[in-house]
Amino acid sequence: MVAAPRGPDADPPTMTRATIRLSIDAMGGDHGPDMVVPGLAVALVRCPELTFDLFGDRAAIERALLPHQRLAAVSSVHHAAVAIPMDAKPSQALRMGRRDSSMWRALDHVRSGGAMATVSAGNTGALMTMAKVCLRGMEGIDRPALAAIWPTVRGECIVLDVGASIGVDTRNLVTHALLGAAMSRAVFGIEAPRVGLLNIGVEEVKGLEEVREAGQILRTRNFPGLRYEGFVEGDDIGRGVVDVVVTEGFSGNIALKTAEGTARQLAQYLRMSIGRTLRARLGYLLAKPAFIRLRDKMDPRKINGAVFLGLNGLVIKSHGGTDAEGFASAVELAHDMVRNDLPRRIAADVSALKELELADAS
Amino acid sequence: MVAAPRGPDADPPTMTRATIRLSIDAMGGDHGPDMVVPGLAVALVRCPELTFDLFGDRAAIERALLPHQRLAAVSSVHHAAVAIPMDAKPSQALRMGRRDSSMWRALDHVRSGGAMATVSAGNTGALMTMAKVCLRGMEGIDRPALAAIWPTVRGECIVLDVGASIGVDTRNLVTHALLGAAMSRAVFGIEAPRVGLLNIGVEEVKGLEEVREAGQILRTRNFPGLRYEGFVEGDDIGRGVVDVVVTEGFSGNIALKTAEGTARQLAQYLRMSIGRTLRARLGYLLAKPAFIRLRDKMDPRKINGAVFLGLNGLVIKSHGGTDAEGFASAVELAHDMVRNDLPRRIAADVSALKELELADAS
Repeated sequence: MVAAPRGPDADPPTMTRATIRLSIDAMGGDHGPDMVVPGLAVALVRCPELTFDLFGDRAAIERALLPHQRLAAVSSVHHAAVAIPMDAKPSQALRMGRRDSSMWRALDHVRSGGAMATVSAGNTGALMTMAKVCLRGMEGIDRPALAAIWPTVRGECIVLDVGASIGVDTRNLVTHALLGAAMSRAVFGIEAPRVGLLNIGVEEVKGLEEVREAGQILRTRNFPGLRYEGFVEGDDIGRGVVDVVVTEGFSGNIALKTAEGTARQLAQYLRMSIGRTLRARLGYLLAKPAFIRLRDKMDPRKINGAVFLGLNGLVIKSHGGTDAEGFASAVELAHDMVRNDLPRRIAADVSALKELELADAS
Repeated sequence: MVAAPRGPDADPPTMTRATIRLSIDAMGGDHGPDMVVPGLAVALVRCPELTFDLFGDRAAIERALLPHQRLAAVSSVHHAAVAIPMDAKPSQALRMGRRDSSMWRALDHVRSGGAMATVSAGNTGALMTMAKVCLRGMEGIDRPALAAIWPTVRGECIVLDVGASIGVDTRNLVTHALLGAAMSRAVFGIEAPRVGLLNIGVEEVKGLEEVREAGQILRTRNFPGLRYEGFVEGDDIGRGVVDVVVTEGFSGNIALKTAEGTARQLAQYLRMSIGRTLRARLGYLLAKPAFIRLRDKMDPRKINGAVFLGLNGLVIKSHGGTDAEGFASAVELAHDMVRNDLPRRIAADVSALKELELADAS
């Protein structure tokens, strides 16, 4: 049962609990609707107040919706003629997809107020560029950030920026600290998140000038709603010594990918070590549930969904190579952030930023 | 039996095989001679052609040498009045320790030709600064690099810079590629090492301008003795897709520390997972040798020793918090590099650099 397509302005279906309407780029990721639609079905089971506007190839989406009756009943399908290829350069994507692509239409639906957030598993660079053009940065924020949720031994922390803005800039780092703290409050309910600036060497005077300046500002300004804890190093992230780790996009992306790579490397070492002796293989079989739990904890699909912060609208990026389970995680993250009123909270925090006048900021 | 102190210019003891003379900062690290001297004794067992000049507090060194008769027989002790504190800033260290510190004297001994390389577990920033002042950069190299040996699923690779030069610079990146390739040839015997530039996203046009420029130069110049493989991402390091990973010091240091932290985090997850059920604990006991091998592979002490490349003399930095076993690894790395004639090879490679004229380099 595919619901008749409704315009973005139509009323959401009547439900007992306030619905949360999300805008979905159905063509994103390596498998498009065949991964996205089952992912929505999974998310809907866990978050029954979700409703969806899906953008993309109508025939493909409706076909994918056929086995998911409940999902179809809370979804509207909007045809978009263009799907942005996963390998398109951002400028190409903007040229070919502005107005008519599923990605653009999904973003524009958030801009016009038709949905509270959008989720896309599409090309990161294209999504970032289109999101900036379509939604624009919030007042006072020059460069939005891509924030990742990072597992730690104590739980989870937020690391930003992991690739949206390259190059370090004092004001930018301070802004990211405030954005990250707002997200930590909204997603994890931490009233005054501990914030650290990623740097190299805590005891010596070294590292970039801009990082030191940002540290001084965070220390002296005493922004409400965050506790500045000073510099942290790469090995402090996983130890969970802070709730928010702030850095610029190049080093943040390298840290994220290096951690993912190290996790995969250790898993491979483990397999190689275990394959060596019968005794080790037997031990592994016995301890297998523990390993699966371990692998799950480090599985990028389970922590799927980076968030673009600082735009006039919430944009959640899911891994392109993810499966339905991974996409569902990203959708649930969107759900949690809308439920916790992240956009309004960020807007409130950003007003604090306006007081910031940094003569020396670039 | 403590050997009578001999001047740096005295002949090394007669041995059947050509000796390799190293200059040792005996006061470096958290435990000074009590860690350094036993470390030398361990290294001497594995590399019997080593001989040492030790610099530091004579009484403390001679006391530490007492139980190590063989080591004492191949060691000369040189009194140095000052020990650089582990938390001294580089400028402080230079003020207080130039001329009279164990660190400076050990470096100066290499400068004057008394030893082929120096090993210190002291303060990294101080060592770096003193090394630059004392040994100076090789002709054609503005900024020396700190190179780390990084374990991969295929073996080991070299990552540089991991903290000596902060801020990205095209010419610097190209120089580091050549230095890293020379080290790879000398340490691992790889004739034409595969070299990658660390970047974010391989398929999109993003990342820093300087990284792209360096990539173009490496691609078009076709330097002899290295194969340029293009950009690599953080998760490619541990996969061993290249033999040398080139980046600037800030992101390199963050990558290194993040990988170390992730390894520790996974070990902790594993302990937590395993503690949960009797079955998992039993499995762990059976598979324990495999885990120990795994832990060893990721143990920073076993891969202890970063190398300052690009100076007129070899300087090996051992972790400050290491133990005798870890210090021995750093000493053995020094041994291997001297035996393989790294300084001369680097000098030869650097002559290729002189042809480099980068109008657009900063």
